[in-house]
Amino acid sequence: MKKTVKKIKSPSVKKDLNKNAKSFKPADRRSVGELIKDQASSMFAKIRKQQMPSMHFPIRSLSNVVYDSKNGHFQLLGKKSERTLSYNTVKTFAQSIRMMAESKKLIITDDMASKREIYYVAKGDWAECKFNEQSESDAVMDDVEAMFEVNREQLGFIPEEKGGEVAGQLIVIDRDRISGKEIRIDCTKFGSGAYSIPSRVEELKFETKADFILVVETSALFQRLIYHSYWKKARCILVAMGGVPTRACRRFIRLLADSRKLPVYVFTDGDPYGYGNIYRTLKVGSGNAAHINQYFCVPQAKFLGVTPQDIIDFDLKDVTYPLNDTDIKRAKDALKNDPFFKFFKEWRKAFEQMIKMQVRVEQQAFAKHGLNFVLEKYLPKKLKNPEKFLP
Amino acid sequence: MKKTVKKIKSPSVKKDLNKNAKSFKPADRRSVGELIKDQASSMFAKIRKQQMPSMHFPIRSLSNVVYDSKNGHFQLLGKKSERTLSYNTVKTFAQSIRMMAESKKLIITDDMASKREIYYVAKGDWAECKFNEQSESDAVMDDVEAMFEVNREQLGFIPEEKGGEVAGQLIVIDRDRISGKEIRIDCTKFGSGAYSIPSRVEELKFETKADFILVVETSALFQRLIYHSYWKKARCILVAMGGVPTRACRRFIRLLADSRKLPVYVFTDGDPYGYGNIYRTLKVGSGNAAHINQYFCVPQAKFLGVTPQDIIDFDLKDVTYPLNDTDIKRAKDALKNDPFFKFFKEWRKAFEQMIKMQVRVEQQAFAKHGLNFVLEKYLPKKLKNPEKFLP
Repeated sequence: MKKTVKKIKSPSVKKDLNKNAKSFKPADRRSVGELIKDQASSMFAKIRKQQMPSMHFPIRSLSNVVYDSKNGHFQLLGKKSERTLSYNTVKTFAQSIRMMAESKKLIITDDMASKREIYYVAKGDWAECKFNEQSESDAVMDDVEAMFEVNREQLGFIPEEKGGEVAGQLIVIDRDRISGKEIRIDCTKFGSGAYSIPSRVEELKFETKADFILVVETSALFQRLIYHSYWKKARCILVAMGGVPTRACRRFIRLLADSRKLPVYVFTDGDPYGYGNIYRTLKVGSGNAAHINQYFCVPQAKFLGVTPQDIIDFDLKDVTYPLNDTDIKRAKDALKNDPFFKFFKEWRKAFEQMIKMQVRVEQQAFAKHGLNFVLEKYLPKKLKNPEKFLP
Repeated sequence: MKKTVKKIKSPSVKKDLNKNAKSFKPADRRSVGELIKDQASSMFAKIRKQQMPSMHFPIRSLSNVVYDSKNGHFQLLGKKSERTLSYNTVKTFAQSIRMMAESKKLIITDDMASKREIYYVAKGDWAECKFNEQSESDAVMDDVEAMFEVNREQLGFIPEEKGGEVAGQLIVIDRDRISGKEIRIDCTKFGSGAYSIPSRVEELKFETKADFILVVETSALFQRLIYHSYWKKARCILVAMGGVPTRACRRFIRLLADSRKLPVYVFTDGDPYGYGNIYRTLKVGSGNAAHINQYFCVPQAKFLGVTPQDIIDFDLKDVTYPLNDTDIKRAKDALKNDPFFKFFKEWRKAFEQMIKMQVRVEQQAFAKHGLNFVLEKYLPKKLKNPEKFLP
């Protein structure tokens, strides 16, 4: 499993982008604009030489993916598909070029657009290239994203969904788009509210004296933690995912953790969904998005709880729920098919223990011992030994 | 339809609370604590006289509801059910009392708890009174909420779900729970991010120079509006509901609009769900929550768009979708059964036009005319004639 991932041949600008990604600075928007221009110029040159222009896309499926334990995420193996201009590909080919042009326009005007908006823009403005269904425009956007090996947000495209919430020892540095002035957002100053992560976080910068980032699954627990200013005592930054983390939320945590060199501790419900869908997605990304996992995964994440062992250690047996068929299927699938869980024996043990105990537990179950047991006893006790967290 | 709602007999403290609600100040937590104490004392006195203690709850169903056009929300007619202590009711009776005690504890300790947490607290601490299912504890909580004619949040219970997002010309005044110090949250200073509304908003105060509140359905449109600082030009406060507004979001808009005397304009997709589920819920509340609509509805809300007429006026015909069966059923149901839509001929006309045109339209469809058409053309044009908004 530990084999090194085959390098993908890239032109020089692309290499710089990847280098940036490695050193954790996102590619700036201008250099993505140059990438687009380079690709367009090379196609144009081919046409001038009366050759057929073509584009190359990495194949996005589990068959073209390996779990890269060094970088800590699923990574592409390098298989590519080619789209050459022909009678059959002419419409998709033209749409890909228009999508590139749309991205370039967004970069020049310093604007952004959601997937859905692009679909509508095409309806109004792309003549014969317009799409019949949004699924078609989404697929072309995914192609362009994969072709340049950047993330959609760098192309100026933003997700529809919200990003997550933040409170605690953190200053987010944004800028006013009109004046260009720096805006400092102090996340200790939101009272019972919180900072809502924007859809696009590439240009944000951070200042913090926190010791770690605590990422929690539910908004309800997040509310309890901020209501009691837990971040003050624990010297941490609190992030609420509200279920499976969105792209913006994952990218935000990644940029923050990288730039400030902070450990990331994750606290979800103790069930196959919390481990397999929420934590796994945050930590290593997902199979069909392997071309962008390098930006969106959080390899430094560790799993704090709730573990099956916590049910025993914190006397939660009578506030568990029996695993249902979906839970059991998810747990068995993780053990059998998931390259990430298969790689770590700690996770194999946790899933096996869960299947043996036949129960799941929620992170709010600690309320059994009193509403604030979770922040007065459970978290302090666990945080004394972060080396025991699951990988 | 315009008949005045029958007054419900209330003890003196309760009257004060209602008076508070009318003058738009939420009951403070101490006075809710007194309500609980009064109820407990009267039960205790009965027991001392060797009489059976009892509780009275308003019946929560559409049969006990009227659309009160003067106050602008569904209101209870006053039918009540009685729960007297007996062999059959002893467990629920005891649970109601424990729920009251739990609320009193939250008020004294200035804490809060979600529905789910209360279920777990009962598991650990309520001995024979514990619940088998969370649905049971939720029902008892609803009973207690209805009994006191306050809202759950005033009892210290908070919803699980998040509240919505805010940006623009607004300072939210919260307090630090530990120092008691005022915290001023300036919603013009979040860059591309936003203020995330907390679960419990009762004690928030507001300062603003805005002319109106613009409430939008989708996070994606909200992102566009804040990215272009739309609130600056339009002198407004932006709120994103992210679908059907949560209790906290509705309460926040209501408190803000009342205390600063601001009009509220709502901008959703042009479909039966946007009109009937999102807008209607925000404006008048829902049938089965009639006992709390006085706190959560926003009677000053007006509907800006997208209206069926907008499809014609703004040339959107080719970016509509055909109504599906669910849409048509929803639209016909609204015309036939919904006391709110039946009351206003403007809404009847809008639904009839939609059914005739057989199409729905999304708020992002304006992107057909360019990404920023919505904020440069559509909104300014509509906002010139707010008197034409749907009621």
